[in-house]
Amino acid sequence: MKLATLKTAARDGRLAVVNRELTRARSVPEIAPTLQAALDGWALIEPRLAQAYRELNGGECESEPFDPRQAAAPLPRAYQWLDGSAYLSHVERVRKARGADMPKRLYDDPLMYQGASDVMLGGCDPIMAASEDWGVDFEAEVGVITDDVPYGISADQAASHIKLIVLINDISLRHLIPDELAKGFGFLHGKPASAFSPVAVTPDELNDAWCDSKLHLPLTVHWNGRLFGRANAGADMQFDFARLIAHAAKTRKLAAGTIIGSGTVSNDDPVAGYSCIVEKRVVETIETGAASTEFLRFGDRVRIEMLDSKGLSVFGAIDQEVRPCR
Amino acid sequence: MKLATLKTAARDGRLAVVNRELTRARSVPEIAPTLQAALDGWALIEPRLAQAYRELNGGECESEPFDPRQAAAPLPRAYQWLDGSAYLSHVERVRKARGADMPKRLYDDPLMYQGASDVMLGGCDPIMAASEDWGVDFEAEVGVITDDVPYGISADQAASHIKLIVLINDISLRHLIPDELAKGFGFLHGKPASAFSPVAVTPDELNDAWCDSKLHLPLTVHWNGRLFGRANAGADMQFDFARLIAHAAKTRKLAAGTIIGSGTVSNDDPVAGYSCIVEKRVVETIETGAASTEFLRFGDRVRIEMLDSKGLSVFGAIDQEVRPCR
Repeated sequence: MKLATLKTAARDGRLAVVNRELTRARSVPEIAPTLQAALDGWALIEPRLAQAYRELNGGECESEPFDPRQAAAPLPRAYQWLDGSAYLSHVERVRKARGADMPKRLYDDPLMYQGASDVMLGGCDPIMAASEDWGVDFEAEVGVITDDVPYGISADQAASHIKLIVLINDISLRHLIPDELAKGFGFLHGKPASAFSPVAVTPDELNDAWCDSKLHLPLTVHWNGRLFGRANAGADMQFDFARLIAHAAKTRKLAAGTIIGSGTVSNDDPVAGYSCIVEKRVVETIETGAASTEFLRFGDRVRIEMLDSKGLSVFGAIDQEVRPCR
Repeated sequence: MKLATLKTAARDGRLAVVNRELTRARSVPEIAPTLQAALDGWALIEPRLAQAYRELNGGECESEPFDPRQAAAPLPRAYQWLDGSAYLSHVERVRKARGADMPKRLYDDPLMYQGASDVMLGGCDPIMAASEDWGVDFEAEVGVITDDVPYGISADQAASHIKLIVLINDISLRHLIPDELAKGFGFLHGKPASAFSPVAVTPDELNDAWCDSKLHLPLTVHWNGRLFGRANAGADMQFDFARLIAHAAKTRKLAAGTIIGSGTVSNDDPVAGYSCIVEKRVVETIETGAASTEFLRFGDRVRIEMLDSKGLSVFGAIDQEVRPCR
């Protein structure tokens, strides 16, 4: 099943099912007005959404054209956004970039931060920044959305709480991060609003590509139309999503609609390219003594997408332009 | 105006106005079903709530008894919870406790962390912990709730976005925090769900006690019935709430319903007592070479309250018992 939130005057938009090819949408106010409302009662609502999805794909109901530019984030505001760092080649490279060491425990104990969830960007919304000097970077990620997760759940039990999967651009302001992390309380200024794929999909929609709580497909990243990365999200993921959920729930329950990100998708082999600029800069520095790739400029575009084995866009593309805030 | 969210089967409860003495409540579904809905349209809704509040205080309408045990957190789930550290005597003492230094910049640049907001506890809900060995501690704080705050707002402009004021118990698991902060991404396990006063109040309700975006009243903390602290929240607050909001909004806008905490209220003079256990332990260690006060045990109770100049409870009491999770 594929779901989107269409932009309306309301803060939470309007829930719609979207067909497999991402060309037609059907609003479902009779089932649930918003995605959060659907997640709040998922066990009862999911079968009805699935039925509407089957009818849409079969051409058995009214529908409207689906325009990804009219899609808000699946949850335009969410009650929780936690981002892991499951790909350790990313963690190693980024820490090297800011001169931080790589403690051994990070191979067993996931890094995860609590992100801002009050404003989530749609896939085609601009990246607003007050200054290019902040070092604007993208981070292409996979994320999951859960239903209610009990306190202290095990990783084995956590997998069944993954209800939807999305792509994420976890926008980062690189030059603000080192000082901020040095203060010891995590990210605040360095991680402004994140952007989400136009469509969220259920695990069954991914067939064999969803296995062991990982998504085994390449995540393509284009920067100003040029391929920048094509790392496989199923490879080199040290902590699968079930493990990340269990980590998050160690001392508390998680409410329905919790979004958990994988962290920047990254493969050990640099031939896959990169899902963020800073990794490329680190490799350049190692190879040539200096980074030659600059961070994003106003007017730059970044496009993040995942195609299935038949070449079909699974989630629609995150496709954003960087714009000055004022 | 005083507002509460009454517990119902719905996740967001039911909005009510509560009279000044906190004895009577009036549900206002004709104005706004929930506090979030009220905040989403505050400019239009606030005058209608104020009218309902006047009628309730004048005995001019139907009402029901107000039982603080039936009050959820004003926002039972919120889109954003950011906690500052505005009282530097707290910061100094806590950092000393975990062997961290006190960089000079912390006197100019507020510490702030992004907290979990998907589950907020009512003022009389239990503090659930899987183990006493986690070092369960309370932190008595003041917090504000905003409407929509623009990107990059100045502190001068931020004050007008403070719509409601609450008390908070920012529950902390002390023994999990040092390792967690050493990982560099801030709090996750060490800060489980926070608890909120039964009632949220508008700034005008506080009269002269609300001045310069600070709340000038003593915050009393009782532990198992004994007075533990009585620090004045208006004294020794290095960063007022307007400054904290501006700090939070440096690289992004903040959505309506954002909660911003003061951090543990703390006065430089230890005669005021403490608003968390760890501060007392640090002072004991300095004075005697070892901390003698233990952290919370199952069955312990903590009560956090603020009385006005006439001895009236402004927000109702946070009054919680610590219970084992299973």
